[in-house]
Amino acid sequence: MLRSHTCGELRISNVNQEVTLCGWVQRVRDKGGMIWIDLRDRYGITQLIFEEGKVDQAVIEKVRTLGREFVVKAIGSVVERLSKNDKIPTGEIELKVSSLEILNPAKLPPFLIEDETDGGDELRMKYRYLDLRRNVVRQNLLLRHKVAQQTRIYMDSQDFVEVETPVLIKSTPEGARDFVVPSRMNPGEFYALPQSPQTFKQLLMVSGFDRYYQIVKCFRDEDLRADRQPEFTQIDCEMSFVEQEDVLNMFEGLVRHLFKTVKSIDLQEVPRMTYADAMKWYGSDKPDIRFDMKFVELNDLVKGKDFPVFDAAELIVGVKADGCAEYTRKQLDELTEWVKRPQIGAKGLVYIRYNADGTIKSSVDKFYSEEDLKKITGRFDAKPGDLILILSGDGDKARKQLNELRLEMGTRLGLRNPDDYKVLWVLDFPLLEYGEEENRWFAMHHPFTSPKPEDIALLETNPGAVRANAYDMVINGTEVGGGSVRIFQRPLQQKMFEILGFTEEEAKKQFGFLMEAFEYGAPPHAGLAFGFDRLCSLFGGADTIRDFIAFPKNNSGRDVMIDSPSTIADNQLKELNIRTTV
Amino acid sequence: MLRSHTCGELRISNVNQEVTLCGWVQRVRDKGGMIWIDLRDRYGITQLIFEEGKVDQAVIEKVRTLGREFVVKAIGSVVERLSKNDKIPTGEIELKVSSLEILNPAKLPPFLIEDETDGGDELRMKYRYLDLRRNVVRQNLLLRHKVAQQTRIYMDSQDFVEVETPVLIKSTPEGARDFVVPSRMNPGEFYALPQSPQTFKQLLMVSGFDRYYQIVKCFRDEDLRADRQPEFTQIDCEMSFVEQEDVLNMFEGLVRHLFKTVKSIDLQEVPRMTYADAMKWYGSDKPDIRFDMKFVELNDLVKGKDFPVFDAAELIVGVKADGCAEYTRKQLDELTEWVKRPQIGAKGLVYIRYNADGTIKSSVDKFYSEEDLKKITGRFDAKPGDLILILSGDGDKARKQLNELRLEMGTRLGLRNPDDYKVLWVLDFPLLEYGEEENRWFAMHHPFTSPKPEDIALLETNPGAVRANAYDMVINGTEVGGGSVRIFQRPLQQKMFEILGFTEEEAKKQFGFLMEAFEYGAPPHAGLAFGFDRLCSLFGGADTIRDFIAFPKNNSGRDVMIDSPSTIADNQLKELNIRTTV
Repeated sequence: MLRSHTCGELRISNVNQEVTLCGWVQRVRDKGGMIWIDLRDRYGITQLIFEEGKVDQAVIEKVRTLGREFVVKAIGSVVERLSKNDKIPTGEIELKVSSLEILNPAKLPPFLIEDETDGGDELRMKYRYLDLRRNVVRQNLLLRHKVAQQTRIYMDSQDFVEVETPVLIKSTPEGARDFVVPSRMNPGEFYALPQSPQTFKQLLMVSGFDRYYQIVKCFRDEDLRADRQPEFTQIDCEMSFVEQEDVLNMFEGLVRHLFKTVKSIDLQEVPRMTYADAMKWYGSDKPDIRFDMKFVELNDLVKGKDFPVFDAAELIVGVKADGCAEYTRKQLDELTEWVKRPQIGAKGLVYIRYNADGTIKSSVDKFYSEEDLKKITGRFDAKPGDLILILSGDGDKARKQLNELRLEMGTRLGLRNPDDYKVLWVLDFPLLEYGEEENRWFAMHHPFTSPKPEDIALLETNPGAVRANAYDMVINGTEVGGGSVRIFQRPLQQKMFEILGFTEEEAKKQFGFLMEAFEYGAPPHAGLAFGFDRLCSLFGGADTIRDFIAFPKNNSGRDVMIDSPSTIADNQLKELNIRTTV
Repeated sequence: MLRSHTCGELRISNVNQEVTLCGWVQRVRDKGGMIWIDLRDRYGITQLIFEEGKVDQAVIEKVRTLGREFVVKAIGSVVERLSKNDKIPTGEIELKVSSLEILNPAKLPPFLIEDETDGGDELRMKYRYLDLRRNVVRQNLLLRHKVAQQTRIYMDSQDFVEVETPVLIKSTPEGARDFVVPSRMNPGEFYALPQSPQTFKQLLMVSGFDRYYQIVKCFRDEDLRADRQPEFTQIDCEMSFVEQEDVLNMFEGLVRHLFKTVKSIDLQEVPRMTYADAMKWYGSDKPDIRFDMKFVELNDLVKGKDFPVFDAAELIVGVKADGCAEYTRKQLDELTEWVKRPQIGAKGLVYIRYNADGTIKSSVDKFYSEEDLKKITGRFDAKPGDLILILSGDGDKARKQLNELRLEMGTRLGLRNPDDYKVLWVLDFPLLEYGEEENRWFAMHHPFTSPKPEDIALLETNPGAVRANAYDMVINGTEVGGGSVRIFQRPLQQKMFEILGFTEEEAKKQFGFLMEAFEYGAPPHAGLAFGFDRLCSLFGGADTIRDFIAFPKNNSGRDVMIDSPSTIADNQLKELNIRTTV
């Protein structure tokens, strides 16, 4: 080892020891007769001290050549500091250096290697290896490591077997777009990268592996939104001989374990909500239940009072913002503009102020008597001082808009503390959703999800009403995982493909191996997958997954550090039997 | 849960309990009044018993419809067996079934789901999900799980951080052929799948991660030999502020830990051998040291005695086979034919028998006196009863041929017991090897490997003589891992690319990011990677890695189960801006 200790290790008990440290120069303070250096590594910072006259002048001269981020090796003895620093664990000591070696010099970094940096996003991504030196970014990745570690500890303790499934698999048109890989040995043919190991984990259940898990890379060639990555990581799991309830308990257990071991948080009971209730009360299948503010429907109270907007609306629905009656006209106008932005798309916003003095004032006083308004505030259980915000329109749209408004109000009212974690199961998703454009049914989860047995008869008569044995885990309004009980019998699987518009031939070509497998003794099974990047960002209290990925890609799918993707050589294309058309 | 216990769980202490089991029908024995079923799951086998007259006749009738591999759920009470089976942990009890449910019927499997199966290789691969049901195959994958688990436990204990590196990276022509992935969002450009995370792990060192590891999929588009897979798994590691010695100790520690925890073997000391010695004594850079049989060079003893073959040969070299002097003429002829096969390519084989009675007899008695032969047997430290086998020719070729012969003799003499593990470090590899065809130097390990500091001066004058700070771990004659101390300074890295024939522009285009990173404070670092599939197969005592991969590909790179690779839709090609040329 080039060092005897790390930069985070020395304490008062090490005083008088001769030690060797290696690390990066974080900061140099030169006070003439004395020079101090903060030496940094992954484990911490230790202060080096050089006293002119007490150390070779050659050493002093060398120290004066050091710049930020130089890599050095320092030998010296540990001494007690005169002025201690109680902010860092090594703050009671410093290293009185007798010998210094520059292991590698450093050019001036293009941005500050500090918690608060002056580097913009593109610059930090280009020099990601420098960005990763910053405490905040490194902590994110150390957190990720810990979440992975604790996930494995839990899964191992529950007898799950880690099995690696292949990365070079087969393209299937159902679902998102695949990344494909031309096969040199099979000209004209392509592998696809997995969007998830779905079919393989089901085959492992057919194989009798009973409990499978894997922390695994998956790939989707989608147009990237701010917080999507073309490659992402899943905690992927499957179990045999279980029912939905068993899966919920098992993975509630995992999340409980992670909160306990990673965040030292004892998770409260995890409530469950049907998809129908989530949509009705929150206008979202991933409600943030850190705060209440449930939707209240008002159709019966507000229609027929000659207010044309409400009379024409399919749904009139509102939320109550506690203690906001004193919002000024300006604030309310601003909020109205906020919901009218194209991203939300509401036509307008109706408010009712339940003033502290007991009077009620609304933006629709023209149409509604005080008694009418009392009935409305009554339905909200409003108290004096509360504000009611009402949207109207097409049912689904109004709900979606009100969901956005609810979340915005939650944020404004400070009800969405990232350190307050509320976990929720959403259950009973619809099995199918109708694609108006394509004029056919699509699987809401995926084609392998089992309908609820009591709804199977509806597959023929009313497919849209069939509920799935599917479940999502939602934390603080973010979907972190989802899964389902699977179909495990060929006839039902075949029926599903039929409903999804597959010809028999297509179904056989793409998923014949799975349907055949179901005929050789497939056990009942169910599973789920967590979005690992997302889970880590939630644990880190951050909004974006990119900060929790060591080498992420930008919104055009580029790694700007290594400059990839890139053109390849003509002979590579030739060997692969392909040609580019640009 | 559909079951209360697994099929491997019930013991005599469970007698009289009412339990529910689920599993696969392994075997049905119908003796008229009594029917027994062996019910199997991942955890074991439990015997079910159905007694006519003591259970509903409907149950008996249902039992009689069961075939192999049906999936059933059985409820009953645990009873002590009359005739116990001490071969299985559940052998003292059986389940007296009161109720039976068929969860899924099964067609007759295309081959026997038994340790010894009648299924051929292709059939078993097509129905891999059935092959995985066989004990032997499942045990391999459970072993793999355990090796992964214990690897992580050790690496975690040594403060290594698990970091995921990207799968969609950049194609570089140095090394093996890349798999590439067309980028839809960047028309005409391609990602490449990593042959290893080499540059990324080095960047993580530049980032100060200090100790990194990952169990990670890698990809090589090579023509597949029997035991190569296009996707394979590595245990990939890197450390900062270390010297070669530290890496050797760290990973000797890992392997020691794995042998202890996975195989309950206390590994003996791990010897070290230079590449030069390995070639000299064993004709191989991965010698099998489970047995001795070192090479002995004879040039000085055998030349100038008018035996034209030896006089013309660059090298005359032999091995001693203890106690084989009694090999018959037929056996020796057969051995001669064996070395003359094209796979080995020797011109002939010279033998010297040191007979039990002290006489010496050779195939070259015409040219050598008894005294000459005595000198030769003396150099081998031969005893009466030993046999000496000698090859000659071009130095490197003769060594390679003798290596094959040595291994073959080791096998024939039973000296290569797969349960006897001998671990070895091979050190001081040459940095470069000359490609005669390409007329240039190639990196023996990879372009990032550091020359030994004392050999750097030779880079200019005699590149072939430069030794690398590179090391391989060899177990029982198989290379299981390898690595090196890395170059961490730009000038030396640039020099290396120059020697390898890169223009400055090429070097910059492909590895500019790494060389630039070296200028911003790169620490000295070193690392290594283990072939995880190979390591598992060694622990499993098997020759082929395929049996330790859940879903392997065949020699044409095909997954015959899912039938991949396959053609993709025209609109996919169009979106990707590529066209096939077949």
